[in-house]
Amino acid sequence: MSLDGLTGGLSSWSTDPAELARASADRSGGVPVGTPRLVVFAKSVVEVQRTVAHAAAHGVPVVPRGAGSGVAGGALAGDGSIVLDLSGLDRITELRPDEALAVVEPGVVTADLDAAASAHGLRYAPDPASAAFSTIGGNIATNAGGLRCVKYGVTRDAVLGLDVVLGDGSLVSTGRRTVKGVTGYDLTGLVVGSEGTLGVVVGATLRLSPLPVRTATAGAFFATAEDAVAAVTALQRAGVRPSTAELLDGPTLRAVDQAQGGDLHRRGEVFLLLQTDGFGAEQELAEAARVVRPLATALETTTDPEVAARLVATRRAALPAIERHGRVLIEDVAVPRGRIAETIRAIGGIAEATGVRIFVFAHVGDGNLHPIVLAGSAPPERVERAVAAIFEQALAVGGTLTGEHGVGALKRPWLAAELGEPVLELHRRIKAVFDPAGVLNPGKAIG
Amino acid sequence: MSLDGLTGGLSSWSTDPAELARASADRSGGVPVGTPRLVVFAKSVVEVQRTVAHAAAHGVPVVPRGAGSGVAGGALAGDGSIVLDLSGLDRITELRPDEALAVVEPGVVTADLDAAASAHGLRYAPDPASAAFSTIGGNIATNAGGLRCVKYGVTRDAVLGLDVVLGDGSLVSTGRRTVKGVTGYDLTGLVVGSEGTLGVVVGATLRLSPLPVRTATAGAFFATAEDAVAAVTALQRAGVRPSTAELLDGPTLRAVDQAQGGDLHRRGEVFLLLQTDGFGAEQELAEAARVVRPLATALETTTDPEVAARLVATRRAALPAIERHGRVLIEDVAVPRGRIAETIRAIGGIAEATGVRIFVFAHVGDGNLHPIVLAGSAPPERVERAVAAIFEQALAVGGTLTGEHGVGALKRPWLAAELGEPVLELHRRIKAVFDPAGVLNPGKAIG
Repeated sequence: MSLDGLTGGLSSWSTDPAELARASADRSGGVPVGTPRLVVFAKSVVEVQRTVAHAAAHGVPVVPRGAGSGVAGGALAGDGSIVLDLSGLDRITELRPDEALAVVEPGVVTADLDAAASAHGLRYAPDPASAAFSTIGGNIATNAGGLRCVKYGVTRDAVLGLDVVLGDGSLVSTGRRTVKGVTGYDLTGLVVGSEGTLGVVVGATLRLSPLPVRTATAGAFFATAEDAVAAVTALQRAGVRPSTAELLDGPTLRAVDQAQGGDLHRRGEVFLLLQTDGFGAEQELAEAARVVRPLATALETTTDPEVAARLVATRRAALPAIERHGRVLIEDVAVPRGRIAETIRAIGGIAEATGVRIFVFAHVGDGNLHPIVLAGSAPPERVERAVAAIFEQALAVGGTLTGEHGVGALKRPWLAAELGEPVLELHRRIKAVFDPAGVLNPGKAIG
Repeated sequence: MSLDGLTGGLSSWSTDPAELARASADRSGGVPVGTPRLVVFAKSVVEVQRTVAHAAAHGVPVVPRGAGSGVAGGALAGDGSIVLDLSGLDRITELRPDEALAVVEPGVVTADLDAAASAHGLRYAPDPASAAFSTIGGNIATNAGGLRCVKYGVTRDAVLGLDVVLGDGSLVSTGRRTVKGVTGYDLTGLVVGSEGTLGVVVGATLRLSPLPVRTATAGAFFATAEDAVAAVTALQRAGVRPSTAELLDGPTLRAVDQAQGGDLHRRGEVFLLLQTDGFGAEQELAEAARVVRPLATALETTTDPEVAARLVATRRAALPAIERHGRVLIEDVAVPRGRIAETIRAIGGIAEATGVRIFVFAHVGDGNLHPIVLAGSAPPERVERAVAAIFEQALAVGGTLTGEHGVGALKRPWLAAELGEPVLELHRRIKAVFDPAGVLNPGKAIG
């Protein structure tokens, strides 16, 4: 392929080795095989279309890229590929408070949209931990989750419609501007979570939701993960719908203490952050406290924003506290809610058996666990064995490899074990419908 | 096709003309062209697979059928087709209260699942008006909505995984038992709403949710639809999240009065039913009342279950009250929330211009309007013109043909106007992936 035929029509691109190296990596720590040939900094939808069409005509892989904040290797760009950097398409093109709706370009940073909405008493409900730097386009690619999802749903639930450049460079619009609608198949939901393998998202119509009028917060400590999970189950039985339910296991809590010079782990082995919101936030938290107290070793409830911020900060500190100990692999399994406690215990067993240090924090209300594996804590083959054992555990209890981060490049080896060959074959044929030349992020998501 | 090769392996089927006639119709009032050749009363997944495989081998259309309660003609069965009646697959195979999860066969009646869940303090959130007789399989086929959707989402939001017989008779499982999961494409969401054109749903894993601890109810009356919609917008601005927000227009309210011998229409031209729920239900309703009162001509709030039941009954009486006047066409457009009032007004204009009687009630919080067209109120060509004008109005303001009932057979002529040819072509190619022989409910949903 001659690059001239493409780059002549583009406003910004680079073949500089340093730029190419930067554009080929993401936050997964995965190492791309080889080097991309070009990075395109897209400034318009037409430039995206031109790039994809050119790549399709020449059979060259295109790797779409937002902030490069993915942790599953979805944006790793290998030999000879074109990186399509969408971070420059970063305008909020519409914000309609009375319709609780926003239309955005893919490079908008998630927290920026949320801030713009909050000026009108609204918010963008999905709140991945990466919200401060990840883009809406990346969130859509992975169907990103976050702390509020337990009550307010994941990215897919917030996406009403998409503008998508297909594998032949053509542009289509899916979905709608209405809250409900069943004309045609749910192509919008199909593209969400497809990690850039079905099309390049160049625009998104998103639903916003009212900011909660009140929030109440609790920090609870438990002797065991079993007790903490029993508390979460008891909440559901009592009709409590927490807006946040986050668990930190023993190793994670100790890492946070070490980082902050605190002694939270003296209150209990496992930490649970709970929040309720809405007009009855205090009453709902009081009921939560009544249910949780008999199971807890310590419990603190508050409506004071500063105290609440301190409790939330304990959860937010988890990953940075672990990362102080070295490079990490951020895993993301999800299991049925009845199997959470045994899975946390099993991961403890895997750590012990392999000698690999593993920390677990979890969106426990959703059964979504983040086992954080300290890559340098044991020889590579033992780290690999530990990661494989975590996946095997999740699948053995009816769970999934990934709750919200995506398969990317790194989890492909386990894909068939979860989906089975006939369903995987359906995936390949669907991809062929959207991307006949097979140039959109090949080797990702569906292998 | 010889039927013997198929029926020899089935436990229950019929070629009786009366059975065939019954099996070929649904609640849409649409008239099938010709007569099916066979109705199969499926008693097992294997019988479903055998029927579809046989049909595929002989190129015979298969029309899956639940309760036949669809109103868009999705279950109309034409000449030479095989009707696959799934109402006999009606077991709740698993109900796991602590995981808030149920696994059901497609023929389970929606209200029966809801009742089974309520014994454990849970519910199945989607509540189509047809819940007492429609089946989960039919709800999944159309992505059914209902009164609680404004807060708790539609059918798709409650479906975690599906067992699906594809067009070649093979059986696949999509999705998962976990609340979150992003391994692979969202095939579950793709099959939901596909009206039996991608596969026959033979099993569903559904999420349940806690019953609300408290509910509060208001009935408000307004001089105009504009005022009622302004009230709904004001609620959102105040951070109120109603669990029900239902509007009855003037003609509908008068029909209800006529049926019940009441005089509600003296309180105002338009009726709005509001409910709030959760730990702060009363406080939230009090705030709703504060916001709504300046716009309303009358307002009643209550936490008394009997008074609430009376207010809810006003809404539930709407369709039966209209049906007393003759055969109806139940339309189902959805529009952006900012365009609701003008659409209600435009529909009034259409009724006036064509001389066709049209009543409107609406899931107004979602912008989902049900214009109910009295079929016998004018000559057929004028009724047709009125229906076409309703669709044109919805599309003109950025809306959709159908919010929750599906395209079925009856809305196909308007499909291309909403989706556009390139997106429709994507639909056809996706269908070919799931149903290469094109035998699954041909001529429905995607034309």
